[in-house]
Amino acid sequence: MQNPDDIKKIINWMLKNDRFSNWLGIKLISVEVGKVILELEITDIMLNGFDILHGGIAFALADSALAFASNTHGRRAVSLEALINYTAPVFAGDILTAIAEETNLTNNTAVYDINIFNQHKRKVALFRGTVYRTNKDYSDLI
Amino acid sequence: MQNPDDIKKIINWMLKNDRFSNWLGIKLISVEVGKVILELEITDIMLNGFDILHGGIAFALADSALAFASNTHGRRAVSLEALINYTAPVFAGDILTAIAEETNLTNNTAVYDINIFNQHKRKVALFRGTVYRTNKDYSDLI
Amino acid sequence: MQNPDDIKKIINWMLKNDRFSNWLGIKLISVEVGKVILELEITDIMLNGFDILHGGIAFALADSALAFASNTHGRRAVSLEALINYTAPVFAGDILTAIAEETNLTNNTAVYDINIFNQHKRKVALFRGTVYRTNKDYSDLI
Amino acid sequence: MQNPDDIKKIINWMLKNDRFSNWLGIKLISVEVGKVILELEITDIMLNGFDILHGGIAFALADSALAFASNTHGRRAVSLEALINYTAPVFAGDILTAIAEETNLTNNTAVYDINIFNQHKRKVALFRGTVYRTNKDYSDLI
Repeated sequence: MQNPDDIKKIINWMLKNDRFSNWLGIKLISVEVGKVILELEITDIMLNGFDILHGGIAFALADSALAFASNTHGRRAVSLEALINYTAPVFAGDILTAIAEETNLTNNTAVYDINIFNQHKRKVALFRGTVYRTNKDYSDLI
Repeated sequence: MQNPDDIKKIINWMLKNDRFSNWLGIKLISVEVGKVILELEITDIMLNGFDILHGGIAFALADSALAFASNTHGRRAVSLEALINYTAPVFAGDILTAIAEETNLTNNTAVYDINIFNQHKRKVALFRGTVYRTNKDYSDLI
Repeated sequence: MQNPDDIKKIINWMLKNDRFSNWLGIKLISVEVGKVILELEITDIMLNGFDILHGGIAFALADSALAFASNTHGRRAVSLEALINYTAPVFAGDILTAIAEETNLTNNTAVYDINIFNQHKRKVALFRGTVYRTNKDYSDLI
Repeated sequence: MQNPDDIKKIINWMLKNDRFSNWLGIKLISVEVGKVILELEITDIMLNGFDILHGGIAFALADSALAFASNTHGRRAVSLEALINYTAPVFAGDILTAIAEETNLTNNTAVYDINIFNQHKRKVALFRGTVYRTNKDYSDLI
């Protein structure tokens, strides 16, 4: 339904204006309809008191991937909820890759699975998020 | 089992060393066994491309509350997973209060509910998190 | 928005036609807008191989409560997803009470918390469910 | 760690003694370490008031798959929690296949993904469950 250039325009607009994703240093590796890959390098400021990654950072990476992937259809989608499972600790210097895929798409809602891996291909977190798909498009924004 | 002074020592240690919670500006309002209240003022850098709070920030606030509340028993607890539901948008300048309460405690695992409210007492997010309770205590850390 | 008689008519219609809830023996204790209380007596056929309640039965009780509570507004609502946490084992002969309450209501979706207690007031399961609210009402059904 | 015969003995014991799974008519299609496939034919008694499958039945099928898959290591595992997402309606006469796979395994807990498909290979539900792994084995039971 969308041509690849329009999709990239939307996601680039979203990322450019997303202050927290930019502060984190999230990089957009690839984007297509229903699928997004992001990358994030972990720095000291992202750690908790036990010198491992604060859960909020892993979640934020997945949540940005959810937002981007669910908006690739050109309709504005908003997150309703998400479950995250932590499967391995993450440390400063690690480079995380988040792969978002569309698990279910209906007219009103959609489900995405985001899996996060470290640089050794070890899965460090699983995230399953549900969005509500509004009827607004991006014509007023880009 | 714990005296209030020891609990405060543990949670203060956790917060002092939690670089991301400190970057966010999370304030510890109160702490007792199984219950913690935190506060966070929302700033521009925490917003996404639609000028509302990035989901990762609300999650991080709740996740810190989960970590603190689940460690008030003096045994180190680590997060297994969490579900967050967003119930109202959050904007720059809002002041969020996260209230963490113990919903279930067994010898090996525990469940906490964290509800987040804005300054108008409107509930903006619900969070339910599960932790695994290790046998390590804090004697080596504080 | 609804008068209590109409609400009861809808929920009674739902329960009367719900074959699995009837097989289980679910009883409607009370119903008002956004809130439902159900009761279920546990029998041998509901147990798993370890002589405790099969998780599917606790879930089904909560799921019926979700369906009833979310339809008390007179608009047909359908479940999107649900998280259940088990907090205590349930045995044959136990009598469970499920209390469903509306945690968040928007025009398109809603969240309900269902807590299940045994006859000793011990919480045995927590359930948080999200529904999509369609625009259909019940005028064609009752 | 386990030989295939022992695994089958355990899972057959579980299924034989699981009264609710037997009432449903759940069939064990295949079992190996960390992976189980089950089948269930949907009958009228499993429907709700709208002539579609009661959510509790889809959940029960997935929950049995979770129980069987998580016990294939020969250590008794108990469910902590599970999230289910419904992705398509199920009707009487449908034949469901539940495929359980191990997503994460640690010494104390494990995560399983169970996907349920209908006879047209359409995904009808997603289930992600977490178990606690006890130190008990099956030597006293089989």
